[in-house]
Amino acid sequence: MDLVTIDEIRAAAEMIRGTAVRTPLLPCTWAEAGRPLWLKPENLQPVGAFKIRGAYHAIARLGPDVGGVVTYSSGNHGQAVAYAARALGIPAVIVVQDNAAPVKIEATRALGAEVVVVPLTERESVAAEIAERRGAVLVPPFDHRDVIAGQGTIGVEVVEDLPDVDLVLVPVSGGGLISGIATAVKALRPGVRVVGVEPELSADARDSLAAGELVHWAPEQRARTVAEGLQSEPSELTFAHLRKFVDDIVTVSEDEMLAAVTILARRSRLIAEPSGAVTTAAYLNRGADLPAGRTVAVVSGGNIEPDLLRRLTA
Amino acid sequence: MDLVTIDEIRAAAEMIRGTAVRTPLLPCTWAEAGRPLWLKPENLQPVGAFKIRGAYHAIARLGPDVGGVVTYSSGNHGQAVAYAARALGIPAVIVVQDNAAPVKIEATRALGAEVVVVPLTERESVAAEIAERRGAVLVPPFDHRDVIAGQGTIGVEVVEDLPDVDLVLVPVSGGGLISGIATAVKALRPGVRVVGVEPELSADARDSLAAGELVHWAPEQRARTVAEGLQSEPSELTFAHLRKFVDDIVTVSEDEMLAAVTILARRSRLIAEPSGAVTTAAYLNRGADLPAGRTVAVVSGGNIEPDLLRRLTA
Repeated sequence: MDLVTIDEIRAAAEMIRGTAVRTPLLPCTWAEAGRPLWLKPENLQPVGAFKIRGAYHAIARLGPDVGGVVTYSSGNHGQAVAYAARALGIPAVIVVQDNAAPVKIEATRALGAEVVVVPLTERESVAAEIAERRGAVLVPPFDHRDVIAGQGTIGVEVVEDLPDVDLVLVPVSGGGLISGIATAVKALRPGVRVVGVEPELSADARDSLAAGELVHWAPEQRARTVAEGLQSEPSELTFAHLRKFVDDIVTVSEDEMLAAVTILARRSRLIAEPSGAVTTAAYLNRGADLPAGRTVAVVSGGNIEPDLLRRLTA
Repeated sequence: MDLVTIDEIRAAAEMIRGTAVRTPLLPCTWAEAGRPLWLKPENLQPVGAFKIRGAYHAIARLGPDVGGVVTYSSGNHGQAVAYAARALGIPAVIVVQDNAAPVKIEATRALGAEVVVVPLTERESVAAEIAERRGAVLVPPFDHRDVIAGQGTIGVEVVEDLPDVDLVLVPVSGGGLISGIATAVKALRPGVRVVGVEPELSADARDSLAAGELVHWAPEQRARTVAEGLQSEPSELTFAHLRKFVDDIVTVSEDEMLAAVTILARRSRLIAEPSGAVTTAAYLNRGADLPAGRTVAVVSGGNIEPDLLRRLTA
């Protein structure tokens, strides 16, 4: 399969400059001895997640004459497409399921996008139909090389800011984020380990990597985790990147993930969503399974439900 | 009076590189029309506050042969001196009052400093005596040109990252932070406005600026605000910078400050202490008193009491 290249990722880095925040690496005073830890706080991006990188890159690559963009997502990707499209002056339609949280629908509308509400099972077909009818382009959440290249810019930044990094921990869902990061990191520093992190309750990518082929978990199984951003499964394209570049995938429990949200708030003054805290949870609880040394944990997003945040800061 | 120069601030920027985080400017999707807002999140520094910049710069300038450093502060400056001294391999003594929160004393010890606990009224004399006895150098929290120059590096970064900035909002306590920032900003972009923000309950710097001379508020008056980081008063040195470079000082109420903590958490995924949220409070509530245009709010610190954080995220 034709994998994303470091040249595509470098081009993406040029393109997203000034729109995506170049997040710093934050050293942690609470790191364990011998395992210094830095956080890459992607929760500080304009829409609260790394998704802005891939979405903006993919939409900017379409050029100014495209009739519009459309996607299906009530979550971080939907908001990222809305934000990026507005920044580029391109109309956006976001198709969301009818049980999505009203606060997320409102947030997406506030970013200037048209929101179409449909039953969950009709999201993808309605999005495809809108794309067809309006001459708009579908921007999928991860199964797209421009999206992957955009997310990969994180890997370039990590290596620039910490050239002697030993280990990068990355959340895994559909695999777009880790595909981009691992491609960049291995191209620039082949010796650096890239390890994915999944919730135990949604560990299909771990199983797939172990089996050497895509292993499917039922959607209702993957939906058990509170980490709503980590319930997708890899595509053929992202799995090809995982097989080539990812060293391992470890898992964390729901409790470990939630405890990590609390630690990030108290010790690093960052609000992370559970999906964004899995890497910190792995650092704190899977040390024996991880390569030692200078570690970077990607904090992928910060859009946590207010009720859950209140509970975790209590 | 001999004011800090932009050359000293530029030299400080070189010196703190790699120790202080170069914080990004975070664009806010919740900004008001016509008044785009960026946050400068200094709460993400290693000890949770901008203080690391001035402390590290002042200690690094002493050279490796100094016998040690000492300061009096149970708060952010004390932890910053501890962190900076450890990074430079220099012994540090932090003198704290006996009613300081145990969690702060513990945090300071955990950074490798020796902590000496004394009654509040004896803090400064004990620190001076320790400095004398051990041949250590006292590093004051703001009344020192190397400290001011260190804090000023924030101003250099703001102008580098947003060359067409119109307004910079800065919390004011002893005035070290705004002295450094205003000196840098006015040297690099004379047309940019620099406006200080104080709590209404501790507005002595506003009164001083209006009077053209230092106006003193009693310590017990200044201590009424929940913003424990904003209870100091300017020195002759910092006030000279304020008079020359600061355009105005506005005030915010306790409720406005606390509401701003909640907004920073919910909308920008940052945990700020009340002192760090005053600039956001001024942006949201004092718009009519502020110059229009592209605004940067310095979020100075994030060391909030867990109880207060729980209440504000409820």
